[in-house]
Amino acid sequence: MDFQSSRSFAENLDTRDPLAPFRARFVITDPGLIYLDGNSLGRLTHASLERLQLVVEHEWGRDLIRGWNENWWEAPVRIGEKIARLVGAAPGQMVACDTVSVNLFKLAAAALALRPGRTHIVTDTLNFPSDLYILQGLVHSLGDHHTILRVGSRDGDVTPDLDELAAAIDDSTALLTLSHVTFKSGYLYEVAYVTELAHRHDALVIWDLSHSAGAVPVALDACNADFAIGCTYKYLNGGPGASAFLYVRKDLQERAVSPIWGWWGQNVPFAFGLDYTPATGVARFLTGSQPILSLLAMEAALDPLLEAGMESLRAKSILLSAYLIYLTDTLLAPLGFRLGSPRLPEQRGSHISLRHPEGYRINRALIEEMNVLPDFREPDNLRLGLTPLYTTFYEVWEGVDRIRRVMAEKRYEKYPAQRLIVT
Amino acid sequence: MDFQSSRSFAENLDTRDPLAPFRARFVITDPGLIYLDGNSLGRLTHASLERLQLVVEHEWGRDLIRGWNENWWEAPVRIGEKIARLVGAAPGQMVACDTVSVNLFKLAAAALALRPGRTHIVTDTLNFPSDLYILQGLVHSLGDHHTILRVGSRDGDVTPDLDELAAAIDDSTALLTLSHVTFKSGYLYEVAYVTELAHRHDALVIWDLSHSAGAVPVALDACNADFAIGCTYKYLNGGPGASAFLYVRKDLQERAVSPIWGWWGQNVPFAFGLDYTPATGVARFLTGSQPILSLLAMEAALDPLLEAGMESLRAKSILLSAYLIYLTDTLLAPLGFRLGSPRLPEQRGSHISLRHPEGYRINRALIEEMNVLPDFREPDNLRLGLTPLYTTFYEVWEGVDRIRRVMAEKRYEKYPAQRLIVT
Repeated sequence: MDFQSSRSFAENLDTRDPLAPFRARFVITDPGLIYLDGNSLGRLTHASLERLQLVVEHEWGRDLIRGWNENWWEAPVRIGEKIARLVGAAPGQMVACDTVSVNLFKLAAAALALRPGRTHIVTDTLNFPSDLYILQGLVHSLGDHHTILRVGSRDGDVTPDLDELAAAIDDSTALLTLSHVTFKSGYLYEVAYVTELAHRHDALVIWDLSHSAGAVPVALDACNADFAIGCTYKYLNGGPGASAFLYVRKDLQERAVSPIWGWWGQNVPFAFGLDYTPATGVARFLTGSQPILSLLAMEAALDPLLEAGMESLRAKSILLSAYLIYLTDTLLAPLGFRLGSPRLPEQRGSHISLRHPEGYRINRALIEEMNVLPDFREPDNLRLGLTPLYTTFYEVWEGVDRIRRVMAEKRYEKYPAQRLIVT
Repeated sequence: MDFQSSRSFAENLDTRDPLAPFRARFVITDPGLIYLDGNSLGRLTHASLERLQLVVEHEWGRDLIRGWNENWWEAPVRIGEKIARLVGAAPGQMVACDTVSVNLFKLAAAALALRPGRTHIVTDTLNFPSDLYILQGLVHSLGDHHTILRVGSRDGDVTPDLDELAAAIDDSTALLTLSHVTFKSGYLYEVAYVTELAHRHDALVIWDLSHSAGAVPVALDACNADFAIGCTYKYLNGGPGASAFLYVRKDLQERAVSPIWGWWGQNVPFAFGLDYTPATGVARFLTGSQPILSLLAMEAALDPLLEAGMESLRAKSILLSAYLIYLTDTLLAPLGFRLGSPRLPEQRGSHISLRHPEGYRINRALIEEMNVLPDFREPDNLRLGLTPLYTTFYEVWEGVDRIRRVMAEKRYEKYPAQRLIVT
């Protein structure tokens, strides 16, 4: 085994990691667990734990209804501003609210209404299926006047077909919507380039930042993005199902109309007038009362990210994934694993896909016997999430080593072959 | 002062209250506080506090992504079933999710699609403005093909005009939607009668149970209600902004189509297919990942309600409000207060409105000097919420006595007159 494949090399990298101290901000109950699923659910910060105790015991339990005047009512706007700093958005363009699905519904409806007469929505087959479903439902509810074009992929779902994408966008395109980082392979779209492709035809763009916010620098304003959405429970460590966010570029805000006219987006909500007039600015995209416990726990988790800074986070993320790719090439490729993510760092986000015909059973063995938590996506895709705030180089090494042991000891064989999902 | 207006009478009522032991289920940090705003935000239960600690520290902090397989993924359906038992719904018709506004949007859109060609939506001026806004936005997003009729009220917003309501519903009515208990006066609609009014013309009905769930028995199935929505942060004590719920009657579920096709409502979400097929049953009305911390804290709060039983809760609620009306008549009417709620117990929910020209300033004095928390609604409406699980008869007496002292000592005069809300 070469030196770079040794445990001591990994440990050495950790000692030189300027972000290493941030791991102490997280609640880690089982140091033996190799957690490589921060791209699905980020770890719990001590800050969220403490904030939640305060919210529940003091703000709800003691202050009761007065809590709304203190920290709660303004939370979607206040937290939106914090997230904005992580994704390159100036103040006044982002709110934290609802779910990614509901936010996409609102923004996609607004976008279609801004482009009357245009009949095409362009997306790709690498997008979150959940986003595709929302588009399909919206089109159906509006009377099936729009067609959704899904651009295909290459290399077994690793990269999108950019030529096909460019060709798909034309003057009939109302809306282009894509995942900034694709969930299967971690492919990273170039926001400026693709946004410009759409703008050349006066089409609007919605970026889904769920897999990039907190892991990859995003420059929404600089790229002239129109709209964006994203979740906070992955690299933002906001907690299970924590409120999502949405971005509407400043100059679009007074023209864009949400179909869901919520009282939190009403101009003077406590006048209780019977007719809706939208609030000024992005707040008009709010709906009803937000889940304060989840929302404020999420808020607290943003601070370590802001302290670390997106450039440092990205630098470590690239090192982690490059290291994982190196170990895959060296140690896992001989065992039948194939890299399912882009090799160029500028083309990938912060998780790495390993493809293996026995991926499903290997994943089961890792979880049930090896104290490793990756995740698995159909049909053969083992995803390993690398969260720069808390993932260590040692964990990457140890995770690969445990995969190696699963293979060497054929531990996966005792699990039933992948159950085909049937309806 | 007559005996029934004395403190000892109130204390005597408490000693005979079979629900009195339930007060110990709540976190009460300030025994001197007279909390009469459970109709806005219910108190914190010890159960929610404990459940939340478990969810955060063990399920998120320790189990991490595995939490989804344990208690989280099924939560909207499981909790929906619990709420269903409080509102007279058989299993399989309710889920807990999203906000009231988003749920109304989904169900109203589904209802309109079920009645193509019908152009009228009927509601009333006593409905939550937030519900009216949602209807307005939906109509706008569908191209302004529907008209919203708002039936008026009587007695200064105390009761709806039932004759006008009956006349407003005809064969052009697609949808009738009302608050079961109106937020201003606490007027309680007769669900069976009004639903039948709509059904006679084959119109669909959505009931908003936000002010009745947990306070008033509801019999959704028995009344043949089509749809219902409601919040959980009022009498269900679910916590600030806790997830809302929605009900779709069994036989409508396969025909009703939500405009928001969420992946939690997809038939086989983890197959990650690119085309949406709805789940069977009411689960098809789910959208995306729900705020688990808020959701599970809310779940824990439902148990004391289920234990107490809606009949007992309603019996105490009526006694509390009758007692408050008695004290109002005896002690507050001479000071210029006017009852803004129905006198007949079968016509009211669980809060009482007191109208007073100085209501705004009186409310301020109560909050800032008297350690009483009522709430205030424009223009002169002091609302006193009575939550049978924890409100005591002594609190009602003491609350009235403190109002009396505010008036006797003219404490309200030092506050600025009501600020007119301007845009």
